[in-house]
Parts: sequence; C-alpha cells; structure tokens
Amino acid sequence: MAVGLWLVGARGSIGTTVTAGLALLPTNASTTGMVTALPEFADVGLPDPGDLVVGGHDVSEVPLAERAAGLARAGVLPANVLSLVRADLEAADTRVQPGVRGGGRPGIEQIQRDLRSFSYQHHLETVVVLNIASTEPLSAPFGGTLAELDSALDAGEDPLPASALYAYAALDAGLPFVDFTPSTGAAVPALHQLALDRGTVYAGRDGKTGETLVKTALASMFGSRNLTVTSWAGLNLLGGGDGRVLADPDRAAAKLASKARSVRETLGEDVVAPVHIDYVEDMGEWKTAWNQVRFTGFLGTPMTMQITWQGCDSTLAAPLVIDLARLTARARSVGRVGALDELGFFFKDPLGSDEHRLDRQFRRLVAWAQGLRDLAPVVAVPSTVRPGRSKVARRMDAVAGLGAPVRVDGVAGRGEGTGWVGAPVTSLDARGIGEA
Amino acid sequence: MAVGLWLVGARGSIGTTVTAGLALLPTNASTTGMVTALPEFADVGLPDPGDLVVGGHDVSEVPLAERAAGLARAGVLPANVLSLVRADLEAADTRVQPGVRGGGRPGIEQIQRDLRSFSYQHHLETVVVLNIASTEPLSAPFGGTLAELDSALDAGEDPLPASALYAYAALDAGLPFVDFTPSTGAAVPALHQLALDRGTVYAGRDGKTGETLVKTALASMFGSRNLTVTSWAGLNLLGGGDGRVLADPDRAAAKLASKARSVRETLGEDVVAPVHIDYVEDMGEWKTAWNQVRFTGFLGTPMTMQITWQGCDSTLAAPLVIDLARLTARARSVGRVGALDELGFFFKDPLGSDEHRLDRQFRRLVAWAQGLRDLAPVVAVPSTVRPGRSKVARRMDAVAGLGAPVRVDGVAGRGEGTGWVGAPVTSLDARGIGEA
Amino acid sequence: MAVGLWLVGARGSIGTTVTAGLALLPTNASTTGMVTALPEFADVGLPDPGDLVVGGHDVSEVPLAERAAGLARAGVLPANVLSLVRADLEAADTRVQPGVRGGGRPGIEQIQRDLRSFSYQHHLETVVVLNIASTEPLSAPFGGTLAELDSALDAGEDPLPASALYAYAALDAGLPFVDFTPSTGAAVPALHQLALDRGTVYAGRDGKTGETLVKTALASMFGSRNLTVTSWAGLNLLGGGDGRVLADPDRAAAKLASKARSVRETLGEDVVAPVHIDYVEDMGEWKTAWNQVRFTGFLGTPMTMQITWQGCDSTLAAPLVIDLARLTARARSVGRVGALDELGFFFKDPLGSDEHRLDRQFRRLVAWAQGLRDLAPVVAVPSTVRPGRSKVARRMDAVAGLGAPVRVDGVAGRGEGTGWVGAPVTSLDARGIGEA
Amino acid sequence: MAVGLWLVGARGSIGTTVTAGLALLPTNASTTGMVTALPEFADVGLPDPGDLVVGGHDVSEVPLAERAAGLARAGVLPANVLSLVRADLEAADTRVQPGVRGGGRPGIEQIQRDLRSFSYQHHLETVVVLNIASTEPLSAPFGGTLAELDSALDAGEDPLPASALYAYAALDAGLPFVDFTPSTGAAVPALHQLALDRGTVYAGRDGKTGETLVKTALASMFGSRNLTVTSWAGLNLLGGGDGRVLADPDRAAAKLASKARSVRETLGEDVVAPVHIDYVEDMGEWKTAWNQVRFTGFLGTPMTMQITWQGCDSTLAAPLVIDLARLTARARSVGRVGALDELGFFFKDPLGSDEHRLDRQFRRLVAWAQGLRDLAPVVAVPSTVRPGRSKVARRMDAVAGLGAPVRVDGVAGRGEGTGWVGAPVTSLDARGIGEA
Ligand SMILES: NC(=O)c1ccc[n+]([C@@H]2O[C@H](COP(=O)([O-])OP(=O)(O)OC[C@H]3O[C@@H](n4cnc5c(N)ncnc54)[C@H](O)[C@@H]3O)[C@@H](O)[C@H]2O)c1
Ligand SMILES: NC(=O)c1ccc[n+]([C@@H]2O[C@H](COP(=O)([O-])OP(=O)(O)OC[C@H]3O[C@@H](n4cnc5c(N)ncnc54)[C@H](O)[C@@H]3O)[C@@H](O)[C@H]2O)c1
Ligand SMILES: NC(=O)c1ccc[n+]([C@@H]2O[C@H](COP(=O)([O-])OP(=O)(O)OC[C@H]3O[C@@H](n4cnc5c(N)ncnc54)[C@H](O)[C@@H]3O)[C@@H](O)[C@H]2O)c1
Ligand SMILES: NC(=O)c1ccc[n+]([C@@H]2O[C@H](COP(=O)([O-])OP(=O)(O)OC[C@H]3O[C@@H](n4cnc5c(N)ncnc54)[C@H](O)[C@@H]3O)[C@@H](O)[C@H]2O)c1
Ligand code: NA
Ligand code: NA
Repeated sequence: MAVGLWLVGARGSIGTTVTAGLALLPTNASTTGMVTALPEFADVGLPDPGDLVVGGHDVSEVPLAERAAGLARAGVLPANVLSLVRADLEAADTRVQPGVRGGGRPGIEQIQRDLRSFSYQHHLETVVVLNIASTEPLSAPFGGTLAELDSALDAGEDPLPASALYAYAALDAGLPFVDFTPSTGAAVPALHQLALDRGTVYAGRDGKTGETLVKTALASMFGSRNLTVTSWAGLNLLGGGDGRVLADPDRAAAKLASKARSVRETLGEDVVAPVHIDYVEDMGEWKTAWNQVRFTGFLGTPMTMQITWQGCDSTLAAPLVIDLARLTARARSVGRVGALDELGFFFKDPLGSDEHRLDRQFRRLVAWAQGLRDLAPVVAVPSTVRPGRSKVARRMDAVAGLGAPVRVDGVAGRGEGTGWVGAPVTSLDARGIGEA
Repeated sequence: MAVGLWLVGARGSIGTTVTAGLALLPTNASTTGMVTALPEFADVGLPDPGDLVVGGHDVSEVPLAERAAGLARAGVLPANVLSLVRADLEAADTRVQPGVRGGGRPGIEQIQRDLRSFSYQHHLETVVVLNIASTEPLSAPFGGTLAELDSALDAGEDPLPASALYAYAALDAGLPFVDFTPSTGAAVPALHQLALDRGTVYAGRDGKTGETLVKTALASMFGSRNLTVTSWAGLNLLGGGDGRVLADPDRAAAKLASKARSVRETLGEDVVAPVHIDYVEDMGEWKTAWNQVRFTGFLGTPMTMQITWQGCDSTLAAPLVIDLARLTARARSVGRVGALDELGFFFKDPLGSDEHRLDRQFRRLVAWAQGLRDLAPVVAVPSTVRPGRSKVARRMDAVAGLGAPVRVDGVAGRGEGTGWVGAPVTSLDARGIGEA
Repeated sequence: MAVGLWLVGARGSIGTTVTAGLALLPTNASTTGMVTALPEFADVGLPDPGDLVVGGHDVSEVPLAERAAGLARAGVLPANVLSLVRADLEAADTRVQPGVRGGGRPGIEQIQRDLRSFSYQHHLETVVVLNIASTEPLSAPFGGTLAELDSALDAGEDPLPASALYAYAALDAGLPFVDFTPSTGAAVPALHQLALDRGTVYAGRDGKTGETLVKTALASMFGSRNLTVTSWAGLNLLGGGDGRVLADPDRAAAKLASKARSVRETLGEDVVAPVHIDYVEDMGEWKTAWNQVRFTGFLGTPMTMQITWQGCDSTLAAPLVIDLARLTARARSVGRVGALDELGFFFKDPLGSDEHRLDRQFRRLVAWAQGLRDLAPVVAVPSTVRPGRSKVARRMDAVAGLGAPVRVDGVAGRGEGTGWVGAPVTSLDARGIGEA
Repeated sequence: MAVGLWLVGARGSIGTTVTAGLALLPTNASTTGMVTALPEFADVGLPDPGDLVVGGHDVSEVPLAERAAGLARAGVLPANVLSLVRADLEAADTRVQPGVRGGGRPGIEQIQRDLRSFSYQHHLETVVVLNIASTEPLSAPFGGTLAELDSALDAGEDPLPASALYAYAALDAGLPFVDFTPSTGAAVPALHQLALDRGTVYAGRDGKTGETLVKTALASMFGSRNLTVTSWAGLNLLGGGDGRVLADPDRAAAKLASKARSVRETLGEDVVAPVHIDYVEDMGEWKTAWNQVRFTGFLGTPMTMQITWQGCDSTLAAPLVIDLARLTARARSVGRVGALDELGFFFKDPLGSDEHRLDRQFRRLVAWAQGLRDLAPVVAVPSTVRPGRSKVARRMDAVAGLGAPVRVDGVAGRGEGTGWVGAPVTSLDARGIGEA
C-alpha cells in the first residue's frame, strides 16, 4: 500500500531531487547512494520506493519542474532526464501546500488538516513527515513538560519554531517525524513525551552527508590506530539555496552547533576544532569542504592530514531521505516508539545517541534492520486521547484514526495486522470525514 | 620471560625508531600509535614491551645512535631524547649482525646460527623475526612444493630472495616470522607448508601506515553509503632510505603491486587506480601522499574527494612493529599455526585474507585478541623432522630444539611457563650446542 | 578580408570548442580567456575573430555537432548553446578533410592541395596552419639541413612524423605554422631554414594551459622573494581524447619531456621535479593537476606549497588558439620571419626562447604587440623557388602564389590590403588554378 | 657606519629570528629569503646587514635566547645554531627596553628617549624604527590634522594607539618608520604630514608573506590570461604568539581588513572573498593557509584552483625585515620623504599605492633601487621646528639633532655627504647630551 512522504521544504534542492529520483527509479536501475538498496536491507519489510507518494509544504512557489531545470544546469540532475520526470514533478506540485501560516495551535491544526487531506486523497497507509526546509535560526528550545506546552498552546502562545510545529503536528497524529535539518524539530522534551504518548517514532537530526560524514569515518581510523587527534579545522564553501540561508549568521549558528557537537562527541573536548561556513554564490549547488587534521603519533611526532570534499549536497541527501522514509515507516509499523537512535548513521547530531563513529553506526543500523526481517507489522495499542489537546485534534483521534494506529474494532485495520497509521481509507470515507 | 625481536633491517629508520621507542616506553607514559596499548588488548596475555629484546641483521654499519641523531634532525624523534636512549641504542648495536652473506642453504644456516646465538645469549623464550629491510625487487616467487624447495636448496641452488631466506630460517626453526615489507618473505607456498610443518605462525605483508590506511578506512564509508567509487589515483612523495630504495623502479614495482592489489580487492576490478611513488630527497623522513577519489552518487552525479597525507612513516610504523611482535609471540605461544590472517589490520597485502576494510579488520583483530584472554600458553606438539631437509637443519631439530617447540620431556611446557618456542636456554646449554 | 584557420585535429575537443566559440563570439559578448581581447591588444591590427574561417584535417569522422554535444554533456560547452552553433559546426564540417594519408613528399603535397583548395574556395588572405592533433610519440627529430631533408623526401623517404609534414607543407607554402602540441612540428633545424627561406613564421610548442601555467607564474614569485625551490612534483589526471592518447607511454613521453624542459629551464637543473600523467577515464574532459612545491627560506627552513588545479583543458586552450591565429597572421603580414619567440607566453616549450617566467613573457608579448600598432601589412619579398623541391611544389610557387608571398606585380600588396600571404583570390581565379 | 634597527616587538618570533639571522649571516653564506641579496640590489648603496645593530621595545621579558630555543624546537631555527647565536642574542637583549608605558605625549617622549639613548650608545648613523609588535585591535584612526593632533597631545589626550605613538616618535625625530603589522602605525593623515615636515620616510603595512603573497602573484596570471576570478575563499590556521593574539576577534579584524582590502583592490569589488583566521595551538610557529579560487574561462565554463600554503611565518618575515631596514635607511639617506610606495612589494596593504600585483611591484622596486645606484647620500635640509610641538621635542631637535638630519653648521655631517640621520656621534658626545 502507498506510504506518504510529506516533505517540509518540498520545493528545495533536496525535495526536487527526491521527487525526480523517485520518478526515475522504476526505469533507472541505479540506486547508487541509497543505503536501503544495499543487500543488507533486502527482505526486511521496507516499503518499496515505488510505493512512496510525495507531498509537502513549502513557502516557495517556484514549480518543481523549474527547480529541476536549474538543478540540471548545475549538474545535479542529468540534463536528459528532465523530460522523463516532468509529468511526475507536475503531479507532485499539486500535492505541495503553502507552508504553515502562523504558529501556535492554529499552525499545528493547519498542518494536520493538510496531512489528513493528503492521506485521505492518496489512500495512504501512513505518512512520514520529513523536514528539509531551510535551517532555522538557533533558538532556546522549549524546556517544559508536554502538559506545560499544551497549556501554552491552548493559551494562544507560540512557544515553538516552525520546525517544531511540524514535529508536533506529525507526532500528535501518530505519524513518524524525521528532521534532516539542524532545526529544533522534535528535539524538545515535550515532543519526546508526545511521541511516547502517541506511540510513534521520530529521528534526526541534520543529515550527515559531507564533511561530518568523512570526519566520523576517519575518527574510527585514528581511534583504532591509537593516534591522537589534536585539531580538526574546517571550512565549508557552498552556494545554492541552503548556502544563501546559511549566510545568515543566526542560521549558520544552528548548523555550526550541530557540527561542533559532533566533533566534540567524536573526538573529545580537547580537540581544537574551528569550523566555518561561507556562502560562495558561484559554487551553485556544489559544496567544497576543506579540513585539516593534526594528529600525533609515537613519541609525540605531529602529522597532518588534509581533506578536500567536493560534493553535491542534494545528490548525497536525496537518497538518504528516501532511506529514512522507508526505515521510519517500517519502524512505526512494527510498534517502535520514541527516538530512533538506530538511525544515527544518517545524522550529524543523532537524537537518542551519542555514538558518532560511522562504522559502529552502520553496524547498529544493519543489526536493527535485520531484526525487522521476520516482524509482522503490528497495530499498536491506541493511545488514549490526551487531556488538554485541542478539540479538533481530539475529534481527529476519536474519529478518523489519523495518527493513532487505532484498532477501532475487531475488523478494522485493513485486514489483520496491517497496522499502518493513517486511517483506512474506506473507513474514513464511510465516516464522511474529510477536509471539505 | 624475555622475548626476542629480531629485526631484519635493524639499522633503518623503522628499526632505529623501534629501538629508541622501546627504550623510552618505561619512563615515557605515551604509547600513542601502539594498537596493543588500547584497552581492548589489556589482559589478553601479550608479552610486555619491556620484555622485548631487540637484535637483528643489517647490511649497514651506521650505528643506531648516529641514525637516531639523523631522525631527530628530521623531526622523527624529539631532539631531547637522544641522550636518554643512547645507552640502549649502543647496547642494541652489539646485537645487530651483518646481513645474510650469500643465499641458498648456507645463507639460511647463517641466519639460524645468528638467531640461536641471540636466543641463547639473552635467555629468550622465543624470537619473533620481523622483516623491515629495504624492499626487494619484484620477483617471481618460487612456486614449487616444500620438498621441491628443499631439493633445490640441497642441490646448492638459490631459488629464494633474501627476505624468503629469513622467512625460511625463522619458520624452519619454529619461530614466528612477520614481513612488514612488500618483499616476498613467507608468501611462497612452500613456506606456508613449512610453517604448518613446524607448527609456527607468520604474518604480513607490507605495513599499512599511510595512503592505504586511509583508503581502506574510507572504502567502508563509500560502501556503507552505497556510493560508487570510479577512480582512486595517488602520488606518493618520500625521501629517506626507503624513498631512495624505491627510486629503483624494480623495487617500487613490488610496493606498487602491493598497493594495487589492495585497491583492487577493496574497491573492485573496475576502479581506475593509478599510483606512483617518487623519491624526493628534500622530504627527508617524511612522506606526502596525495589521492584523488572520484565517486558517483544518486542519479549518477560524479563527485570528488582529495586527501593529502603528510606523515612520518617511521613514527607510524614503529609502534606497529612492537604490536606485531607482541601479537605473534602470543599467537605462537597458544599454538596458532600458519598465516595469521587475524592481523590483516596491519597490512596492505594481508596474507591469508582478502578483507581490506579497516573497520572489519579491526573488529576481527579485537575479537581474536579477546579470545586469547584465558588461553594458557601451550607447548605445541613437536613437528617431526621433515624428510629431505639438510643435515645441519635436521641435526638442529633433533638436538637443539631451537624453533621446533620440542616437548623436551614428557611433562614440560604448559603451565610451567616454559612453553615459549625457543629451547629453554639451560637445556641448550646442557647439550653443549652453541655457536663456538 | 577572411583569414583561414586550418586546424590539424579539427574534430578534437579543442577544435570543436574553437569552432563553437567562434560561432558564438558575435552574439555572446564574453571573450573571457582570450588574451588578445585584453585592452593591450586593441588597435594593433589583429584580424577580427569574426574574419576567421575554420577548416582542417582530422582522421576522425565524428561530426563536430556530435562532438559538441558530448562536450556539453561534460560541462565544457553550456548545454543551451548547442542549437545556436549547430549550423556553423555543420558548415565547418564540410571544410574538414581526412588527415594526411601516407607520409613523405606525397603527404606534403596532399596537405598543400587541401590548403590551396581551402584558400581558393573561401577567398582567404592567408591561412594559419595550427596543430591540435593528438600528441605523437617522442621521436628523434631529423637533424640534417633543409637540402638533406629535401633530398630524402625526393628519394621517396619518409623522415618526418606527421606533425612535421604539416609544418613543412605550411611553411613551404609561405603560411604561418603553429604547434599547440608537444609533437615535433616545426622544431627541426631544416624547417627553421625553410621558414626563413619562404619568409614566413612559426610558433610553438605545447600550449601552456594548466600545471605549467601556474608553475611559471609562481616561479617568478619564488624568484623575486629569493626563496629556493628544492622540488616540484606533479601528477596530472585527465580523461578525454587527449588523456586516452597520453595513456600511451610513448606519447606521454613527449608531453613529459616538454613539461620537464620547462621546469628545468624555469627552476634550474637541481630541482627534483617528477611529473606523471594518468588517464582517468571518469574525468571526462576535465583535468586535475596536483603539485607539491618544496622550498627553503631564511636559515634553510623548509616549507611546502601545494596546488590543485581543476581545469577544463579545451576551455583554456580554445581561446588561445584564436589568439595564436590572430597574432601569427598579423606577424606574417608585417614581414616577421622565423620562430615567433614573442609568443612564448602561450607555450610550455617556447620555440626560439628559454624564458619561461610568465610575467616576463607577458610583458614581452605586449611590448611586441604594441609595436605592431602602426605597422602597415607588407608583402614580403617573394622567396625564390628553392632548387631541389618537387615539381608540384615548384609549379605551385610559380603559378598560384599560394604560400610564397609573391609580389604579383610591381606595386601590389602594401597599402592596398592585399598584402596577406595567399594569393589575392581574384588572381587565383583568373589563372584558373584549381585542385586538379 | 652602524645603522640601528629598532624593533617594536623585538622579543617576538620575527624579532628573535631577525636577531639570530643577523648573527649568523657573516658566517652562514645563505641569504635565502632576503630580497636585497638578489643581484638586482648589489651596488645600490644599501647598508650592509653586518652594519645593523638591533635594539627595540617589548612588553615581554622572556629573553631572546629562550625564545630562540623555542623556535628551534618548532623547526624555525636549526637546532645546531643555538650555541652560535647565544652571545649575540644576549647582547641584543640588553638593548631591548620595556614597551611604552602610558600613551599620549609622555609615551612619545619615553620612546624618543630610548631611541636617543640607543643611537648615542651605539654611534648610529640612523635608526630605522620597525613595528613587529602584536597586531592591535582595529580602531578608527585619528582623522585630524597634525596641528589638531599636537593640540590633543598637548592637552594631555591620548588619541593614538601604541603603534602610532611609535610612528610619531620616529617620524618626529626624523627617523624612518616601517609598519610590518596591520596596526595603525603611520597610516594617519597627521603622521603623513609629520613625515613630510620632518623630511623622513615611512613604509607599510602588514608584511606580505603567505596567502596574500600567493594571491597577488596569481592575480597577474589570471589577469594576463583574461580569466575572470569569481571567488577566492581562504582559511588561515596558525599557532604561535601571533596566532594567540589573532584569536581575539578585535585584533583579527585588523588583519582581515588588511587582507580584504588587498583582495578587493587586486581582483575587484565583485569577487566573493571570505577569509578566516583561526588559532590552532598545535600548529606552533607554523601556518597553513588554504585557498579556493573559482574562475571562469571561455564560454563561461567555471574552473577551480586550490592552494595549500604551509609556511613558517617568521622565516618568511625575518629576511624581509632586514630588507626593509636596508631600503628605508637608504631611502632616507638620499632625501626621499613621505610614503615609500616603491616598497609595496613587501606589504599586504601598501601605503601610498594601490598596486597589488606582485610582478609589477617587484619591477617598480627594482627600478627604484637601480636608480639609487649613483645617488650620493644627501644631508636633507633640516626641518624647521614645527610650532606647537612639545618643549622636550623642540629642545631635542634644537640640540641633539636626533632625527632631524640637521646640518648644524657648514661642516657638519661627518664629512661631506654622509648625511645619515641620527646625530653625528661625536657632536652629540661633544655637546654632552645624554639621557638625564
Ligand atoms: N543537502 C545536504 O546534504 C544537507 C545535509 C544536512 C542538512 N541539510 C539541510 O536540509 C535543508 C534543505 O536543504 P536544501 O539544499 O534543499 O535547501 P534549499 O534552500 O534548496 O531548500 C529549502 C526549501 O525550504 C523551503 N522553506 C523555507 N522555510 C520554510 C517553511 N517555514 N516551511 C516550508 N518550507 C520552507 C524553501 O522555500 C526551500 O524550497 C537545509 O536546512 C539544509 O541545511 C542538507
Ligand atoms: N615506514 C613505513 O610506514 C612502512 C610501511 C610499509 C612498509 N615499509 C617497509 O619497511 C622497510 C623499512 O623501511 P625504512 O623506512 O626503515 O627503510 P630504511 O631504508 O631506513 O631501512 C632499511 C634498512 O634495511 C637494511 N637492509 C637492506 N638490505 C638488507 C638485507 N639484505 N639484510 C638486512 N638488512 C638490509 C638497510 O641497510 C637499512 O638499514 C622498507 O622495505 C619499507 O618499504 C615501511
Ligand atoms: N587542451 C590543452 O590545454 C592542451 C594544452 C597543450 C597541448 N594540447 C594538445 O592539443 C592536442 C589536442 O588536444 P585535444 O584535447 O583537442 O585532443 P583530442 O584527442 O580531443 O583531439 C585530437 C584530434 O586529433 C585528431 N588526430 C589524431 N591524429 C591526427 C592526424 N594524424 N591528423 C589529423 N588529425 C589527427 C584526432 O582524431 C582528434 O580529433 C593534443 O595533442 C594535446 O596534447 C592541449
Ligand atoms: N610573520 C609574518 O609573516 C607576518 C606577516 C605580516 C604581519 N606580521 C605581524 O608581525 C607581528 C609580529 O609577529 P610575530 O609572529 O613575531 O608575533 P609574536 O607574537 O611572536 O611577537 C609579537 C611581540 O610583540 C610584543 N608586543 C606586544 N605588544 C607590544 C607593545 N605594545 N609594545 C612592544 N612590544 C609589544 C609581544 O610581547 C611579542 O614579543 C604581528 O603583528 C603579525 O601580525 C607577521
Ligand atoms: Na546525540
Ligand atoms: Na594602498
């Protein structure tokens, strides 16, 4: 059955590449860059990429086909595929809604209405909400409990940045939420509680696609050779939309904080590790990251390693977005709840884990995935309707089943054990619940 | 009890660094660069570095202290330690013999006499013979059986290059042999047979300390991200004695063959992977390796990574030499025979294994080492005297017990700490067998 | 009046880029990369790029438009210009003849027939013959005099490689010859004599577009700071047709010899300067050159500089080809004869000069060009028909005036704009001289 | 006759290297890195390096010999020269005074007392005051006239940062002042006026020794090839005292401003050119600068060049400091006044010039120096005592002749034409003018 992939920031470089890539996968044999295409992930019950239906939010109105043409000019997409993917991009465009207008409870409800409508129209088993919108400025995360958060929201306050509104909306509806950006997203204690309450999962944050990927691969090398890293300095030069956004020091701060946390947790507090990000417009969709690593060997002799990484961020990120959609959908279906620390392999700042070494993260991911092999999808115990939630949300829980994987009655759930969140379409239909 | 570390090429850069390093270890807390100093290797029964006694062969007559002064000028050894290690270097110098004069059976016998004398004088439990001599020209290895090899040797032929003479001498005497160079060493079918016959171990070859180390660390990264490496080109610039030797195209060929094998086995046959080595005298003891990796990601977009490695080869190699001495001595003592594929982590061209990915090699090494934790040293069943061997060799087996892990009497060995190969010194003494 | 640009290797990457670029210049304001578009070269009497008519030889039959599409896929040409240049490329294709079939005198005569026909059909004032064909294997150049060369040719021998046949054909016909490759071309004593005899010019060789360009720019820096360069090592990785050809060690030898000569003459004999070229197919039309420079400063402290150059060779070479056509046509028209050492700025191995420092070469070029400002084109004194030349050639001289800068009558030439070598078209026409 | 070299910051890395280097020059043939040792500067009348006497100010009390030992450990000085230079360093130490205590007029007067005392004790013909102290924080330079500046100083105000106090003290005394740092120094309109009034010279600022050196060498290359640079991004990693000071963002701002000015003036306003400086302690006295240059060629194809510079700043700077002392002393002696724009070759931010291209700067320097060849030293016309100066200063002018190259009487100046500023020692002596 179809699974929704709801991209917050659907019309950005990554979003466009994901959508074009999904359109090409059936005819184009190559799944290069997709981790879940490795043999290790065969037969572990992941939804097929062909079953993913893309929708999303964006504040941009530039159509996907136009973005794709720009990406082809920049060498991100092969020029000759534009015509092949045009129809799919146009179709996906109709499923992209304007980004959240206004914050607080009304914002959450708007998002949930869009998600429900998406789920309903496309008969989706579940919807993975995945944030690939522009990085937000660094902000002090809301520190209170879920009850306190709900009180604030009910009182008309707006204590959450946009990324966390999306996380709230998704988790509250029992849907998986993934943060591919360094924005706040679900990294708020109250939202962790919400995920547990609603029996759903979240993962994040900040996709590990370049400099940090290499860093966490090499950290194991230095570690296993007992070589002491004394400094690791880096410069990131990038153009593109992401570069333009990160030219704003407040937003770069979020990214740099995420990178710094990764270095510290990987190499220890004592390593001198300055990192810079510069917007260099003529780089287009490309990034150059240069790193200098200084380390000492036997008898204290200092040595140096330098790395120049010239990557195309969207090319690296897009297949991981597809991986994350497949993996979180599956995790949700088998009843896993809370932070998916098993997915740390994908992130610079892995929620729920402080393991950064790439090889260990990969082993952990594979071990977990292999453990899914024989698990039937479960229908999770329905979460009770939490007190203090908005009326609309409660009505949604009670009636539509969107989010909470309710076994409404003995026969519900599209045959035994199917359990995908998202209400059975026919039931929704029968009950006359829709947007209109 | 003391363990001998017999370095073939003892007066080279690595040999000098090993000897100086061992002298410093007791007072200098730092074991940076020594893998066996990691917590994973505590309590697994390795001989203490302080128990290693260095001896060896070399064709050079430059004293160790003079080489050490040169290394200090080049920044390999801290200038202020020269005075601290002088006495130890001078002592070690007295244990270095002229390199093998002449090949064939007489050469082997000369080496064995030197080994026996070393073992005898220093009351050694065993002797690890470890090749760090200049790389030999690439040569077609002897392809025949052990019997054929012995016949050739007995007929006065000289079918083995020097490195293989050392391997023969060591293995035949039941001693562990390690090849840290790309030279032939034990990588000959007949010598594998010899190791099995004599119940001893060997490991090799070509220490993995720079470009290839990084390559096999990053190969896992590309692999786990399902990114396709299309080319990996490299240039190695080095000075020093090793550089001077490798300026000879025939000798460089051996090194390049070892590097190429590693790339092919790691990344597949299709990767275009040219590698060059140049002798650049002004680099002194330092090496710069530059690598360009091209890889493709999602939808075929090509990307590039470049690595510049500026290392001091002897600093990187010396602690590994100590590791290998400790690990092979221990392996021998617990009765392990044949190629030590568990030590592939240390080598560019791992004998007995075709796994090159650093993370897997490390896990395998650790798992094996942990398995040693509770093993008591054993005295292996003595090998029978092989037919067809030279008279001298046979006499040695029968009488001296050097090498062959002879159970001198019914109960000896195991549990009484005598079990190290190398005959108990007193027995040797008692039997009146010595050099004179 | 129109000037012919006869490209030997017209269907290669450079040839295609030149032809596409000339087609675009009138509408596309940008002359980036063209040296003669700098203000220093305004008003010095160079023929307009719009007056160049491209023709040439090639052994390939792949049409220019198809090559151009490949270059667009590789990012050398912008994808959106393909349609704009298609007609021009197709027209140029009709002016490309099969490369020389067979050597010796018959080969020369074939080339001259093609040149004459080209000149005749397109009413050309002169024709610059410019070699951008695949690099030839290194060969011992013919060392004899012009008379000896002609005797050999007349005797049916074939003492010249193809590039020198082209040079002979051009110079003998009084046309400028430029060698943009490291092949022999005009770098033969006898051909220098021929150029003098026939009153024409030649320039070369091996376009300086990447690694060597940077080297000769930086050599001045080190020199003016009195810093001593001790080594300069380099690796060149390239794909494309040129890369494929240079994968042949014999051909790479020619290129490496040219590079080495440049280093030696620039930095002195003592600098250790190994250079390698590797064919890395996945680089397509791109090249990466990596260089490590070691130098010492005050009190002998060694320091290091490393350079990574990622260029598109054809993009760099094509505008220089146009520059060379303009400059040599002008030089010829003002009566300059012999090796154009003033053009050393363009070449790795400047014929007629051993100055390699880029800044000095540039000043020399500019000074010379400025000196052309007020020079009227001259019709050089016609060379006498040399004895010993083939009959066909002699007939050509006597009749057609192609090549030999014949003063057709007492007053012709100078001041009436006919002065370009190559006979005035109407005269040729009048005399009824054609191919047969 | 002896010339004083008064180093502000004499005990820093550069100061120590200068002093050690001068001590070694007589016995050590090598003048590598000294521009004035090139043949172009022979016979142009420069004072001999052996005639330089080093003195200076510093706020540090670490003796020069101790600093030198540290530099040797860091590889800046060869370890084996320490004993050779010890006596010279200890002697120089006695000529280093505590840095200026307090600002304003009293500070200036303290500096002048120290200069006078230095000149007097060492019988100096002139004294070049050269700033190599730690970079000051960026500050708004005093914008008023000299009269306004003097009024402020007389009113007890302190409108000048320390570097400008030194400049004032030197220029007011008729001595040459050189700023090797990006600090304010003489770059104040009022101090330019002061130099003119007192008939002396100044030069600066911010020695061009690494990244910017390369940048201004390559800028000419791109320019002469008509290639358009679109971005030039850089990262500088350095340790040492200078690095520690530049870790302070206010001070780094001064350096970055100087670098940015250089890029803008060299490459134009439109080039995107972010630059960063990071203090990476484990780099010791070494610096790594990494630069990425993006440029476009024919038809707009973008290309990339990357540069890694691994230099030892003090090694690069020290010989230039000696050059500057020789050149400014000579310029002063021939009567040159004001900003020495001919010395732009040495500086990132050349005072009096906006030419940054290295090759042109070098030609200008050489042409100027050659013009000095036949110039006899002149005794400049004595500056009148400016109104509004402090009493002490006026008394100094009138009496001591320090600074103002006063021809006190018809025969003054130690024989005709000797003319070095700094009072004739015997006269000073005769007049009994001392410190008290
Ligand atoms: N590409 C990578 O390798 C990588 C790695 C880690 C993290 N990321 C992060 O992924 C995100 C997307 O990267 P990109 O290159 O596609 O950037 P992009 O600028 O091309 O796209 C971002 C999109 O988000 C939209 N957007 C902005 N604010 C929004 C909002 N409030 N609601 C909905 N949409 C909004 C923008 O209109 C734009 O279309 C960035 O935050 C980036 O930092 C990317
Ligand atoms: N340093 C590393 O990182 C590294 C890595 C892999 C392999 N290796 C190999 O290790 C070896 C030693 O390296 P090094 O830097 O010490 O080189 P080195 O040149 O400094 O030392 C080699 C020593 O071997 C001696 N020697 C030569 N032929 C001999 C013979 N027949 N018998 C005995 N001694 C002989 C030489 O006299 C010299 O003292 C080389 O083969 C090198 O390729 C080194
Ligand atoms: N591109 C640069 O920056 C640069 C710099 C210096 C020298 N060069 C030289 O310029 C030449 C052309 O480079 P390219 O990149 O265009 O190479 P290419 O391989 O794309 O083109 C070479 C062309 O020459 C043709 N050719 C081969 N032999 C011939 C012959 N005997 N007669 C006529 N045509 C023949 C081939 O068919 C091909 O079309 C090479 O020799 C190269 O080494 C190039
Ligand atoms: N080394 C280079 O290549 C280079 C190039 C351009 C500019 N510079 C500049 O040269 C200066 C010196 O560099 P360094 O590497 O020797 O630095 P350093 O830190 O080793 O030395 C600076 C010295 O100045 C002294 N000092 C600080 N404030 C002072 C004051 N008010 N009065 C007198 N002395 C004072 C310090 O005590 C120290 O001894 C720095 O400003 C640096 O930015 C250096
Ligand atoms: Na974490
Ligand atoms: Na200026």
